[in-house]
Amino acid sequence: MGYLPTGVHYEQIAGMEVVLANGEVVRTGQFAIENSKSAHVSKHTFGPSIEGLFLQSNLGIVTKVGIWLLPRPQSYMFCTFDLPEMEDVATMVDVIGPLRRNGVIDSITWVVGATEIIATRFKRAEIWKEKGPIPFWRLKEIMKKMDLGFWTAQFGIHGPEEIVKARFEEIKKVVTERAPTGRLRGTLYAGKSAEILSGNVLAKGNPDMYVGKANFKPFRILNFNLPLDDSRCIRAHRDFAPIMPADGKTVLEWTETARKICEAEGFDLFCDFFIQERSVIFVYMTTYDKANPQHRKALRNIVAKFSEEAQKRSFAVYRSHINEMGKYA
Amino acid sequence: MGYLPTGVHYEQIAGMEVVLANGEVVRTGQFAIENSKSAHVSKHTFGPSIEGLFLQSNLGIVTKVGIWLLPRPQSYMFCTFDLPEMEDVATMVDVIGPLRRNGVIDSITWVVGATEIIATRFKRAEIWKEKGPIPFWRLKEIMKKMDLGFWTAQFGIHGPEEIVKARFEEIKKVVTERAPTGRLRGTLYAGKSAEILSGNVLAKGNPDMYVGKANFKPFRILNFNLPLDDSRCIRAHRDFAPIMPADGKTVLEWTETARKICEAEGFDLFCDFFIQERSVIFVYMTTYDKANPQHRKALRNIVAKFSEEAQKRSFAVYRSHINEMGKYA
Repeated sequence: MGYLPTGVHYEQIAGMEVVLANGEVVRTGQFAIENSKSAHVSKHTFGPSIEGLFLQSNLGIVTKVGIWLLPRPQSYMFCTFDLPEMEDVATMVDVIGPLRRNGVIDSITWVVGATEIIATRFKRAEIWKEKGPIPFWRLKEIMKKMDLGFWTAQFGIHGPEEIVKARFEEIKKVVTERAPTGRLRGTLYAGKSAEILSGNVLAKGNPDMYVGKANFKPFRILNFNLPLDDSRCIRAHRDFAPIMPADGKTVLEWTETARKICEAEGFDLFCDFFIQERSVIFVYMTTYDKANPQHRKALRNIVAKFSEEAQKRSFAVYRSHINEMGKYA
Repeated sequence: MGYLPTGVHYEQIAGMEVVLANGEVVRTGQFAIENSKSAHVSKHTFGPSIEGLFLQSNLGIVTKVGIWLLPRPQSYMFCTFDLPEMEDVATMVDVIGPLRRNGVIDSITWVVGATEIIATRFKRAEIWKEKGPIPFWRLKEIMKKMDLGFWTAQFGIHGPEEIVKARFEEIKKVVTERAPTGRLRGTLYAGKSAEILSGNVLAKGNPDMYVGKANFKPFRILNFNLPLDDSRCIRAHRDFAPIMPADGKTVLEWTETARKICEAEGFDLFCDFFIQERSVIFVYMTTYDKANPQHRKALRNIVAKFSEEAQKRSFAVYRSHINEMGKYA
């Protein structure tokens, strides 16, 4: 998954060359035609399509593959939409979902919980000295200081300037009506195509990810649960990420379940999630000190409980720690 | 292929149930999870994806399948863009192609040759009494009478009204600059959602196909090559439809080749084509009298020559008459 309109990467594949275990070479789609100029410009395959067999698989070694890229857009808007309360997760899903389905937001929407954003600036120990999870009143103090909602959705709109603006206006209309406590913000990067992705414009803001530029900023959250003196710590993270329908009630219920599980082990609800057209991938993703046996134990318990609750709801996880392969789903 | 933004139908599949030859039942993606509420709302599959094996295939019988539909749009615009000369086929491809790639036109664009549109109103015998193909001067007379270009692109824009308008304005800007001899026309159907697809609004125009309504109007072209007295005729059609890159020069060269092949057999260039993001499916699709041995012979010759020329260019066909299965590609 990526953050551009082409973000579901495997759907951008057109024409694969694969070496099979017996040394045979197969080519898919138009690439199967000798000297075809359409080898990578058409996704159409003949008869049974075998490309899927080589996705996340060891059935062959993909030696060549055509991938469709997003043409450099004429303009680009980096948008955020935040909502103040934990319970607003339901509204977030029910308001953004239809905008994903009708294409007004045409790329993945990443919704980040306040704690995860706070963790890009502070260590937990800097903002909460007591044992146990950070209480809501303290979280709200920091949210206010950082001008944050409890949930912040981030997404990009790419394309000709007037269309980008029209899409933003439509989003504004929808959220004003359906989520009046929310705050929608958009920063337009327009001008010569060359400037948009060159870094000159983006240096002012921080929407690099939504124009396909990787950065290391999220790594800062690795320090969150570490003590002030972290010289002996080993930074690590664990996650549990079930797929569920893009239905506000379902996601709220899971969020509350997740919070209780984390807090019972002295950890905070530390999460983000992705809104796709019709489903949500909810990521509980915390960071910890691998050198700390208490942390390791707490995380094992948290993930075990998540697994138990997910199985009750028939949620499968979209990725899994190697130790838990085959346990869930 | 269909005419909506969801037109590449197999890409809308989420969760299949398939009965294999040995009686085993397999379910794909989230549908593989017992009682999963995400069975049909997520396209994500685990590990190697086997769905493709059951597309256009006899490797199993698909007994259930989730298909994502286009939510009813708030408004809809039916658009045409025509260009006057045969050679403009290159401009058509080179101007519409980038608009398909940047998503401003987000569904298949169907470009129809003048002869094929004329055939929805007239028999050939009504407009040209001589032997041999209809000459350009006569074709142009009819085009003028019918207010037609040589090539007419048709496409729909769906969504919130202001976004639809902004997209139309962008298309207008692009074609005005890059194809000034063209004529862009758009008819907006806005108002209450219920009216758009109910037939009340569309009864005024004829864009049914672009809102997903099938109709029998194209069947009229079956009469085109029939004599005035067609009481003993058997209506039939043949086609040859290669896939090629969405490159104006390539499509123009093929169009000219196709015209010579048809005209050598006394038939007209009778064609339409589909502009996808990066490829074109060029359809020579003529209608004839199956009871007429001369027609049958001419069509056999035409298709054989098409095949020969397509093979020279490494073009594969996207569909094929059962008699020619395996001959091409």
